[in-house]
Amino acid sequence: MLSVLALLADIEAGRTTRAAIAARIGEAIAEREPELQAFAHLETERLLDGDAAAAAGPLGGLPFGVKDIYDTFDMPTTYGSPIYDGWRPLSDAAVVTMTRRAGGIPVGKTRTTEFAYLQPTVTRNPRHPGHTPGGSSSGSAAAVGAGLLPFAFGTQTAGSMMRPGSFCGVAAVKPSYRLLPAVGMKTFSWNLDTVGLFAATIADCAYVLSAISGRHLRVDGTDCAAPRIGVVRSGFSVEAEPAMCEALETAVRKAEAAGARVTAVDLPAALLDADRVQPTIMEFEGAASLAHEMDRHRGQLSPKLAEALLRGGAIPVETYDAARSTAHAGRRCFETLFSDIDVLLTPSAPGAAPAGLGATGSPAFNRLFTLIGAPTVNVPGLTDPAGLPLGMQLAARFGRDDMALRAGAWLEAVLAD
Amino acid sequence: MLSVLALLADIEAGRTTRAAIAARIGEAIAEREPELQAFAHLETERLLDGDAAAAAGPLGGLPFGVKDIYDTFDMPTTYGSPIYDGWRPLSDAAVVTMTRRAGGIPVGKTRTTEFAYLQPTVTRNPRHPGHTPGGSSSGSAAAVGAGLLPFAFGTQTAGSMMRPGSFCGVAAVKPSYRLLPAVGMKTFSWNLDTVGLFAATIADCAYVLSAISGRHLRVDGTDCAAPRIGVVRSGFSVEAEPAMCEALETAVRKAEAAGARVTAVDLPAALLDADRVQPTIMEFEGAASLAHEMDRHRGQLSPKLAEALLRGGAIPVETYDAARSTAHAGRRCFETLFSDIDVLLTPSAPGAAPAGLGATGSPAFNRLFTLIGAPTVNVPGLTDPAGLPLGMQLAARFGRDDMALRAGAWLEAVLAD
Repeated sequence: MLSVLALLADIEAGRTTRAAIAARIGEAIAEREPELQAFAHLETERLLDGDAAAAAGPLGGLPFGVKDIYDTFDMPTTYGSPIYDGWRPLSDAAVVTMTRRAGGIPVGKTRTTEFAYLQPTVTRNPRHPGHTPGGSSSGSAAAVGAGLLPFAFGTQTAGSMMRPGSFCGVAAVKPSYRLLPAVGMKTFSWNLDTVGLFAATIADCAYVLSAISGRHLRVDGTDCAAPRIGVVRSGFSVEAEPAMCEALETAVRKAEAAGARVTAVDLPAALLDADRVQPTIMEFEGAASLAHEMDRHRGQLSPKLAEALLRGGAIPVETYDAARSTAHAGRRCFETLFSDIDVLLTPSAPGAAPAGLGATGSPAFNRLFTLIGAPTVNVPGLTDPAGLPLGMQLAARFGRDDMALRAGAWLEAVLAD
Repeated sequence: MLSVLALLADIEAGRTTRAAIAARIGEAIAEREPELQAFAHLETERLLDGDAAAAAGPLGGLPFGVKDIYDTFDMPTTYGSPIYDGWRPLSDAAVVTMTRRAGGIPVGKTRTTEFAYLQPTVTRNPRHPGHTPGGSSSGSAAAVGAGLLPFAFGTQTAGSMMRPGSFCGVAAVKPSYRLLPAVGMKTFSWNLDTVGLFAATIADCAYVLSAISGRHLRVDGTDCAAPRIGVVRSGFSVEAEPAMCEALETAVRKAEAAGARVTAVDLPAALLDADRVQPTIMEFEGAASLAHEMDRHRGQLSPKLAEALLRGGAIPVETYDAARSTAHAGRRCFETLFSDIDVLLTPSAPGAAPAGLGATGSPAFNRLFTLIGAPTVNVPGLTDPAGLPLGMQLAARFGRDDMALRAGAWLEAVLAD
């Protein structure tokens, strides 16, 4: 993979140039993209454009990928749907402009599942082309995982960043709800949709997030005391597979050996309840958000999505209101977990990337934290016996993105040891 | 004005037809629109289209207006900015599709101030063409106030519905935050932007809101016991003018005479603080939301907006975070006000519509409730000595849109007596 921090350090030290990086990326794309199909649109020639203003920013003129659920004024935007084939918005999504301002150069739109829901796209897993890269941020995770780009944006409404991060062996951060603006992304669920990003390492994620948000979130993995970790071994709607259970215990063992205090945490009833209502909020809001597409272009929606929108449209408002109340109670309860721990540790997914491209895997370990709005990171480093990545998810309390990233970088270093 | 409920009753009773209503509206538009300039785009021929499916819905095929800050797939959408001249989105905003489903027929885009901020548009006040209609939902309030349409959508980020409702003598409802989805409207501030609507009476507003949201919110103004009212006479950043103070006391006197218990409420410190931070949140988020327009089309932004975006971009994230915490504390405090009252009563604006078209008036009496996310209504009925409307604002606790509407319809009837 291409580390943002390593590339910037190499440029700074004169060990490489932007032109050399562009050439390297161009070769990687030529080699891998025909199989991976990570991109819905790609403008590799931008890699060679000189852009002095961008080069002077903290992102140093590095290229990045934009999940095709975000509007871009200078590249087509399809939201993963044939309804929007060739569509050209007039403006950028807010995070795209913010990233340009910080010196990033958008060079491609990465493939998303249809409107960031569950219908898979054609993208393949960079670690094993017979397996799904996960979804819905399939192309962004695959492109970063294959070393085609140093970073790329994704979104998460249930588990659309943590899961592909885990499956592709890529670091990912889903910041606190609305730490980054969702303006200019195609909405599915306004209470859930969250902007995030993928990079080679947690420290890379933190650097990019700092550069575009103006927040002090940089970490390097060494300046952090061992965190107090609460490990969650059950309570989600799906059980972890044996290999993932083993990976979780490996992470616990290594963390303890490195000085972390690890305690078992059982999710309280309020959080089990919150976990169960996430689909209610997602489908109710999705049915409103995509009402136009349902009414005018139903024949171009996948059956999977159309069924979800029908389900969402049939949810009584009273059920939706009750789900929002349950979510609110869950958010208050979640805060109480952190009196004597810094982060929660869970698997990022039930297991490694499933074989085949017919499904994108389960968001069961992620949707609670999306609903709560808590920052999470996917920490790569472990694998199953077949060599497929198994990600560890850390969650911190709302607004403590610094803690999620610091603990993530610490764990990443510990797992690599 | 054209009352939704009266029109539907007349159709039902055979006293009128949709064709007759269309003719009446067509004449009103021909007579008033050249002066008012309420519309950015108008397709009066749709008034005559037969649409059996729409006629069968609860909105009975009635025409409505859409503030030009919402996307429409079949009419141009400019957001009140020359940057988007002739722009044609591919899809409808969610509320537009929801209203079509309920049997409404969108016949025009109503003028908005530039990106729903403070730079006035050309629209005039229907009650006095030398005065502003208020903003940012200028065209929607003017069109309903002049009897050109039975209802129209607006948005409110500070005071963009209550203020024009007050100035134009039109009933308006700003529902609880996200009761109606903001999907497909051009975002200024994601924590503040709220979808609402104008109609001839509060009962009309309630009927339309029920029809499109699927919530039981209908009122008729007679089935409601006299509400317990807390009147707020001070604490906002601007003082009410003498005529408005008199109108407020008239409303109090009439309400008491009709059986309401009216008590004086002083806004607690937490709400005074919240009121003061609303501009911080609005400008910080506006600078992110309109980052693309600022970077690529700055020459086409008004100086007023460009300055606000510069101010917003200069707000430190720590200041913004503190403002969000203050808002959160304000929301909790607000709930405590309602232990023995049903609604708060305040002026909807400092006074009548200011003379001239150079400014849209002050949102000082509205921005707190927008920030809190509480439902508010503008109750028309009173006027100043010159005959210009003076609106009364009622606010209920979050989620109690039913109470805001019931009390609003009750007060409307009381003021009309």
